Amino acid sequence: MSNFLPKSIRVLIEELSRLPGIGPKSAQRLAIYLLHQPETGLKPLGEAILKLKKDVVFCSTCWNIAESDPCKICNSYERNKNIICVVEEILDVVALEKTGEYKGVYHVLHGVLSPIDGLGPEQLKLGALFERVKGGNFLEVIIATNPSLEGEATALYIQKHLREYGVKVTRIARGIPIGGDIEYADEVTLSKAMQGRSEF
Amino acid sequence: MSNFLPKSIRVLIEELSRLPGIGPKSAQRLAIYLLHQPETGLKPLGEAILKLKKDVVFCSTCWNIAESDPCKICNSYERNKNIICVVEEILDVVALEKTGEYKGVYHVLHGVLSPIDGLGPEQLKLGALFERVKGGNFLEVIIATNPSLEGEATALYIQKHLREYGVKVTRIARGIPIGGDIEYADEVTLSKAMQGRSEF
Repeated sequence: MSNFLPKSIRVLIEELSRLPGIGPKSAQRLAIYLLHQPETGLKPLGEAILKLKKDVVFCSTCWNIAESDPCKICNSYERNKNIICVVEEILDVVALEKTGEYKGVYHVLHGVLSPIDGLGPEQLKLGALFERVKGGNFLEVIIATNPSLEGEATALYIQKHLREYGVKVTRIARGIPIGGDIEYADEVTLSKAMQGRSEF
Repeated sequence: MSNFLPKSIRVLIEELSRLPGIGPKSAQRLAIYLLHQPETGLKPLGEAILKLKKDVVFCSTCWNIAESDPCKICNSYERNKNIICVVEEILDVVALEKTGEYKGVYHVLHGVLSPIDGLGPEQLKLGALFERVKGGNFLEVIIATNPSLEGEATALYIQKHLREYGVKVTRIARGIPIGGDIEYADEVTLSKAMQGRSEF
């Protein structure tokens, strides 16, 4: 980095370029953009970053992020506490909530089984899930991990473990996405789409 | 934005998605990334943003950003004070400094003439440039605005104004970039490359 730039700009560029998906050039552009903002425009962003960890807790039931424990979803009378949807990440909850389709509760694993990244069952919230299912009276556990190699392996692992509790375990449908093209779909997606076909 | 997310996360996502080139999805991903960082990882970024405006001044000679006025470049004994390079933005100075080729001083316009965006000569540091050239004894003024419509118009405007001061005014070469392909170059670039040809 050119050393004629003021130190505070250099520090900001360095910190910004640490963020995922932001390269050195984007970090420069963002820093200069922020420099041209009025003081009042910078304060909310800076303070939001500094206060982030103080105001956020994890819900000790579903392990989603929340302002208080238990979280809004676990604490809501409008949610069906007998259905549980298992997801990899917090953002998966955000995506599913946006559909407005699902009225049950969640369980966030915070990752998937991935021995190559050193992620075993202990690093995920799997133990908490099994305890939760064992202790509760759930009608269905929907496994909504990604249809990736690790996501499928994690789904299988969960399904095998939950078998003994006699709960119904389902997996989200994998198939051709809306707007997708059968011609360009890969073989695995196509066979899953065929296997998962439903009657009109 | 899903309202089950903690307020501090929602504020952060909102502030991040205001930044140029960062859409709502990237803002979400960045916010969750920051959430998973330790407190010590968030502090430098948050503080760099909050302190940004306090530690940075504009050099009243060249209008580049600096820690003190005059800036390091204007204050350096190693720079040739008789050559001045006119650029649009601070980042252009960064790019030119990286080449290590240029040893003169700069003048940052902070934009280009663009009537459609309401940018006339008064909005740019053009008056300051003309005063500076009038009052100094410069041997050459290199105009390094971008080879865009507005950049070329601004270059012409500056050249016309400086004519009366009897200073040599030059324009950076426009042509085929290194690694570029003549076959795919546009007509304007090609004619500029032909016009600007030099002897071996």
